[in-house]
Amino acid sequence: MRIAAKSAGPDGDEALRRAKRADFTDVRANNLGFVLRQVRVEGRCSRADLAAKTGLNKATVSSLVAELIERRVLRESGSVIGNIGRPAVLLSVDSGYYASIGVEVNVDYMALVAVDLAGNRLLSWRRAHDGAGSSAGRSVSAIAGLAKRAVDKMDAEGRQILGLAVAVPSMIDHKGVVRNAPRLGWTDFDLASRLRSAMRDPQYAVSVDNDANLGAVAEQRFGAWADMSNMIYLTGEIGLGAGLIIDGELRRGAAGFAGEFGNLFVEIDGSIGRVEDLASIRTALIELSEAEDINSTEVEAEVEDIVTRARAGEDRVIAVLERMGRALGAGIALAVDLLNPEVVVLGGHYQALSPWLLPAAEAELGSRAFAPESGGVEVVVSSLGHEAPALGAATGILNDIDAGRMPTPLGR
Amino acid sequence: MRIAAKSAGPDGDEALRRAKRADFTDVRANNLGFVLRQVRVEGRCSRADLAAKTGLNKATVSSLVAELIERRVLRESGSVIGNIGRPAVLLSVDSGYYASIGVEVNVDYMALVAVDLAGNRLLSWRRAHDGAGSSAGRSVSAIAGLAKRAVDKMDAEGRQILGLAVAVPSMIDHKGVVRNAPRLGWTDFDLASRLRSAMRDPQYAVSVDNDANLGAVAEQRFGAWADMSNMIYLTGEIGLGAGLIIDGELRRGAAGFAGEFGNLFVEIDGSIGRVEDLASIRTALIELSEAEDINSTEVEAEVEDIVTRARAGEDRVIAVLERMGRALGAGIALAVDLLNPEVVVLGGHYQALSPWLLPAAEAELGSRAFAPESGGVEVVVSSLGHEAPALGAATGILNDIDAGRMPTPLGR
Repeated sequence: MRIAAKSAGPDGDEALRRAKRADFTDVRANNLGFVLRQVRVEGRCSRADLAAKTGLNKATVSSLVAELIERRVLRESGSVIGNIGRPAVLLSVDSGYYASIGVEVNVDYMALVAVDLAGNRLLSWRRAHDGAGSSAGRSVSAIAGLAKRAVDKMDAEGRQILGLAVAVPSMIDHKGVVRNAPRLGWTDFDLASRLRSAMRDPQYAVSVDNDANLGAVAEQRFGAWADMSNMIYLTGEIGLGAGLIIDGELRRGAAGFAGEFGNLFVEIDGSIGRVEDLASIRTALIELSEAEDINSTEVEAEVEDIVTRARAGEDRVIAVLERMGRALGAGIALAVDLLNPEVVVLGGHYQALSPWLLPAAEAELGSRAFAPESGGVEVVVSSLGHEAPALGAATGILNDIDAGRMPTPLGR
Repeated sequence: MRIAAKSAGPDGDEALRRAKRADFTDVRANNLGFVLRQVRVEGRCSRADLAAKTGLNKATVSSLVAELIERRVLRESGSVIGNIGRPAVLLSVDSGYYASIGVEVNVDYMALVAVDLAGNRLLSWRRAHDGAGSSAGRSVSAIAGLAKRAVDKMDAEGRQILGLAVAVPSMIDHKGVVRNAPRLGWTDFDLASRLRSAMRDPQYAVSVDNDANLGAVAEQRFGAWADMSNMIYLTGEIGLGAGLIIDGELRRGAAGFAGEFGNLFVEIDGSIGRVEDLASIRTALIELSEAEDINSTEVEAEVEDIVTRARAGEDRVIAVLERMGRALGAGIALAVDLLNPEVVVLGGHYQALSPWLLPAAEAELGSRAFAPESGGVEVVVSSLGHEAPALGAATGILNDIDAGRMPTPLGR
């Protein structure tokens, strides 16, 4: 047996790493976010309740609450008689002042959702948009036009805009540059900057993120499986992307490129290929139409047609959908082995096709995943549907505030 | 355009989820951990420095420091003349009182590492152990025997044991049950409980975790890439497993089963299969020996022999290793597309074989990954080698303390 007692050499590296982590930690900001989240949990509560719940002393709580009211994040809403007879002022989230706007641009439609600070939807718009057929400039104008209508509406209600976030079916880098959106014809396109100019450099932040990431954010906060900390959200639009919620947070990876689920390699009925090539909506549309490629402006109508034909029991349609489901299940099994999620949520058009996709996917997952009982994962259908990415874009801004990055009311 | 203004229905779900998260948050514990991490960063510092660095007020800092000293986590170590002339007492991590013990059991060896609270190695032992040939009971006795020798040595030095953690090449559930370790012949084996009894129910915690998870923990804290927040660690023992560091933390998945990298499906030179079947050390040993299966007690000698033959330029050996490297690179490309890590660390025997594996793996990764420049990932060789899992087992206990789960000195 070799015995050695050496000191851990790279304490320098460790110190460096810890320093980096410490830089990100601001106790005051953390505590502001923590108090806000507590009020969300309680609905309405007093400063004394908050001190009891958070373990912070009453002076600290009062100072934190004062700042949150100053920032129009919390408001006082009535009072109750406390247990020792003195009236206690109740606090709740101030849902009346701010609005957060999320937009999704895809190859066949645009969607916009606005929410208040309590997460209530203020606007939920959807309209056809030929993203594939439009130039990048035309798409920027269309997004800006839709966003401006929402901003004007919020202005008219006296609401301050917290931010505008746009969901795009593409790898997006940390600067908001669209790296590669083949179906939109965008490569290394700085959508965030272009949109900022088109909106005349507004005071609020304009950001861009991947549609699957934002769909996952929406599902985690508003979906039927919102209490799950480990979730994989799969977009079911023309392409197939994944948003990863791991230990309660969206995980983007080092450069923002995480979630390329569609590249996983699977073997189904003797044919081998990428999950996206075997299980995307695009694949179904091409296989079930006589067309060479899809007509991106007709996607919804064509999906509805497929549903009708499947309901009517058309063998070929059902066979194609079940094969898609098996490929999806085989890909999910690989992701489950690597990440062990609690739930995999099928979004977009997968919802309408789920009666045929889901049983096939579940069977394949069960027979392929290595973990006992597939690690306990459930494959489910989105409860938010096509609204998820735009809702997630609006929601991400609320999550930043909950994390302690507090907004500043104008004119303060 | 459809216009709808509906309220976000499942606010109840949201409240429920937030409540769960809030339960995990204890401000006092967070702040204790935060102060400890600050002292680690600074090395030696005064209470005033800590107040300045953390943004906590001096009274709070003094109360936190008093508890940390009481718990033997920090100690006062001399003083300096402060800038306004009054001497300031300096604080540092108390490396003299506690010891944390990590053990790795594998098919051909056992390793043990003990560290103090500052992360200095107190013990680093390794010995041959026929894990494949031994019964589960024999292995438990062997682990307990090795651990007891370390515990006695620490007792003799007057050190209190923080915990004993064991690394096993297997899926481990959250209860410390070994679900499936085929090479050790263990299935649903409650190693943690068995070991606790063999150690006569000690006061410190006895835990079990996956070897790849713990290797990743060691690399993150002590490895040459310790400042990376997104890392995939690949074990290079007889099998092939992965530990995932995502956004600075080890991610175990919902049930503790994350990291089954070896099941990813790749195609290399026309042959298709699981990465583990194409790129594990076991594969090389079988292909390059006349044996039907490996002799688990000879793994190190056989790997050394392969290195010698490769250095001597033996074509068949080099071809097998390069093919392994390509399969490894193809698998890494899939994990990179899904997780976008900054670094992939090759552990265990991959270190010795890296001159032949690494160039092939990098070439394959570069040609297959979807993200631009493979998302900036580097494939590197472990700087900790075979010691990583045992060191990680000991280190995980320190990480818990840094996170605010403070130890209690005996007799307090």
